Amino acid sequence: MTKPVSDKKFLRALSGEVFDHPPIWLMRQAGRYLPEYRETRAKAGSFLNLCYTPELAVEVTLQPIRRYGFDASILFSDILVVPDALGQKVWFEEGVGPRLDPITNVAGLKVLDKSRVLDHLKPVFETVRGLRQELPKETALIGFAGAPWTVATYMVGGRGSPDQGAAKAWAYGDPDGFQSLIDLLTEVTGDYLEAQVKAGAEVLQIFDTWAGSLPAVQFRRFCLEPIKALRARLKKSCPEVPVIAFPKGAGAAYETYFKETGVSAISLDTSVDPVWAAKVLQPIGPVQGNLDPLLLVAGGSEMDRAVDHLLKTLGQGPWIFNLGHGIVPQAPPENVERLIKRVRG
Amino acid sequence: MTKPVSDKKFLRALSGEVFDHPPIWLMRQAGRYLPEYRETRAKAGSFLNLCYTPELAVEVTLQPIRRYGFDASILFSDILVVPDALGQKVWFEEGVGPRLDPITNVAGLKVLDKSRVLDHLKPVFETVRGLRQELPKETALIGFAGAPWTVATYMVGGRGSPDQGAAKAWAYGDPDGFQSLIDLLTEVTGDYLEAQVKAGAEVLQIFDTWAGSLPAVQFRRFCLEPIKALRARLKKSCPEVPVIAFPKGAGAAYETYFKETGVSAISLDTSVDPVWAAKVLQPIGPVQGNLDPLLLVAGGSEMDRAVDHLLKTLGQGPWIFNLGHGIVPQAPPENVERLIKRVRG
Repeated sequence: MTKPVSDKKFLRALSGEVFDHPPIWLMRQAGRYLPEYRETRAKAGSFLNLCYTPELAVEVTLQPIRRYGFDASILFSDILVVPDALGQKVWFEEGVGPRLDPITNVAGLKVLDKSRVLDHLKPVFETVRGLRQELPKETALIGFAGAPWTVATYMVGGRGSPDQGAAKAWAYGDPDGFQSLIDLLTEVTGDYLEAQVKAGAEVLQIFDTWAGSLPAVQFRRFCLEPIKALRARLKKSCPEVPVIAFPKGAGAAYETYFKETGVSAISLDTSVDPVWAAKVLQPIGPVQGNLDPLLLVAGGSEMDRAVDHLLKTLGQGPWIFNLGHGIVPQAPPENVERLIKRVRG
Repeated sequence: MTKPVSDKKFLRALSGEVFDHPPIWLMRQAGRYLPEYRETRAKAGSFLNLCYTPELAVEVTLQPIRRYGFDASILFSDILVVPDALGQKVWFEEGVGPRLDPITNVAGLKVLDKSRVLDHLKPVFETVRGLRQELPKETALIGFAGAPWTVATYMVGGRGSPDQGAAKAWAYGDPDGFQSLIDLLTEVTGDYLEAQVKAGAEVLQIFDTWAGSLPAVQFRRFCLEPIKALRARLKKSCPEVPVIAFPKGAGAAYETYFKETGVSAISLDTSVDPVWAAKVLQPIGPVQGNLDPLLLVAGGSEMDRAVDHLLKTLGQGPWIFNLGHGIVPQAPPENVERLIKRVRG
């Protein structure tokens, strides 16, 4: 396959092109900071119902595109549809977050059935197909999944936790047993991402929110290796599709991770120094990021200065403007407007 | 001043000596995982009362020394005694953690009075003096304080938070106003640490738990610069006293931070790869860390392997064995025993 020729700015940046004004999208850009999102969300009943109703999922995905004309659109869904599809009980409590019936050892894996995943996730693929029809022709469509380690922290803990203690208890107490959960997730995540590409996703992003919590040895085994395997598989099955990884909190290990996994681009969390990233990471490939979502809440001159700093540093190499983490509900929509104007010049 | 000559292994490691078996202590080694601590804690009434009653504070500080013979002892106290001494209302809710009457803008600073700090903290200095009398002669005594940025996150937020959102709202919305809080904290933290040295502390550690949450520009201004200023001041007033900094989550910025602040040693969080630290940080100076506290909970062969990995990597340079974060209440005391045996060989 040859490198895709595209008039989509986002895809061109991913293939290494450098722009005076980079393409921009925001993680969680379809979200609670938008009144139109809150309205559709209210209609959907449960959060999972919003993810599984293509008409509503397409609608919320398009809302920020209509309002702001971002260069990329990301499928509206959640990383926990994978455990849900595997047969684990998953629900979302208002104001609390995701809850799952925890699986804490090898015996618990019995409830999971990988043969039902793609069938269960058909509504997601229908959303992807719908989006390819509805999106403006200049807007790229990103599919995504959670990384095996991060998804496992929720499956084992039954909820988010500050220290990923439950998953670590299993991973440290019975590493080979825990590896079987990671292997299962790596396999079905590959199936899931390939099916998103078949439905029309042009880029894939893998979210590894808790990549920063493991020590080096287990980071390699449970974080880096699964992404390396996924990347190798996707390179064979859909070589034209770029893969972005987001190993949040990986610190200095961003370098090794980027090199060894062979992903097309890497998304930087807020704490990554753009001067360091320009020196160490951009020679490996394009980067994405990394304005603090709370600078977007504050807005004003401090946000402007931060944007200018990113333009001066990461802007010298292949780069996609984004936040260092998802946009938060209290971000004023007018600050997003101001941000986009500043980035686009 | 010449380099201190000491027969305390901990101090020798801090002056650059490399051992086959490094000195060891654990952050929060006087804590809830010990039944004797829980007993003394119950007698104390409030948590702050435990910190401010020298007889009880000395007792809990000595408990882990008696049980395990650690190479260093750390004054039992809390980073929030500084805002308490400044006149902010601080209390600890059982099972919730610290609570403070939040100060969210420059006007709020009026309640703070730096002239009362050293007087208010007299019981802490008495604890230090008591410890110097009671500790075995081979055990070094560490005094400590929170870093200005980290203490500020609690003072502004009124409690711990996952994103330090309140402190960031102030820092981003009114950076110069927020700077006046940081400056005040830098000054009184210097006073406080110097007074600890006068009372008998032989080493100082500065805890910067939230160093990993700020973007590079604000990290430099609100995290790194205050520590640099503190280090410069302490180098003049007590040049013989080593200062260890713990900028948790600083990632690749550990390198710049270590070089620029000029601290004597740096404490590594769990996510720092010891191979990277041996290559990049140990040439700058001694390091401390960084076993995952949850590996200490798991114990067994996975903990042993992790300890051996640290011995093989960080053990080749100047190093103090420690955890990557504080020991947790569920750590079995017998695992601490096993850990110490493994480290001491």
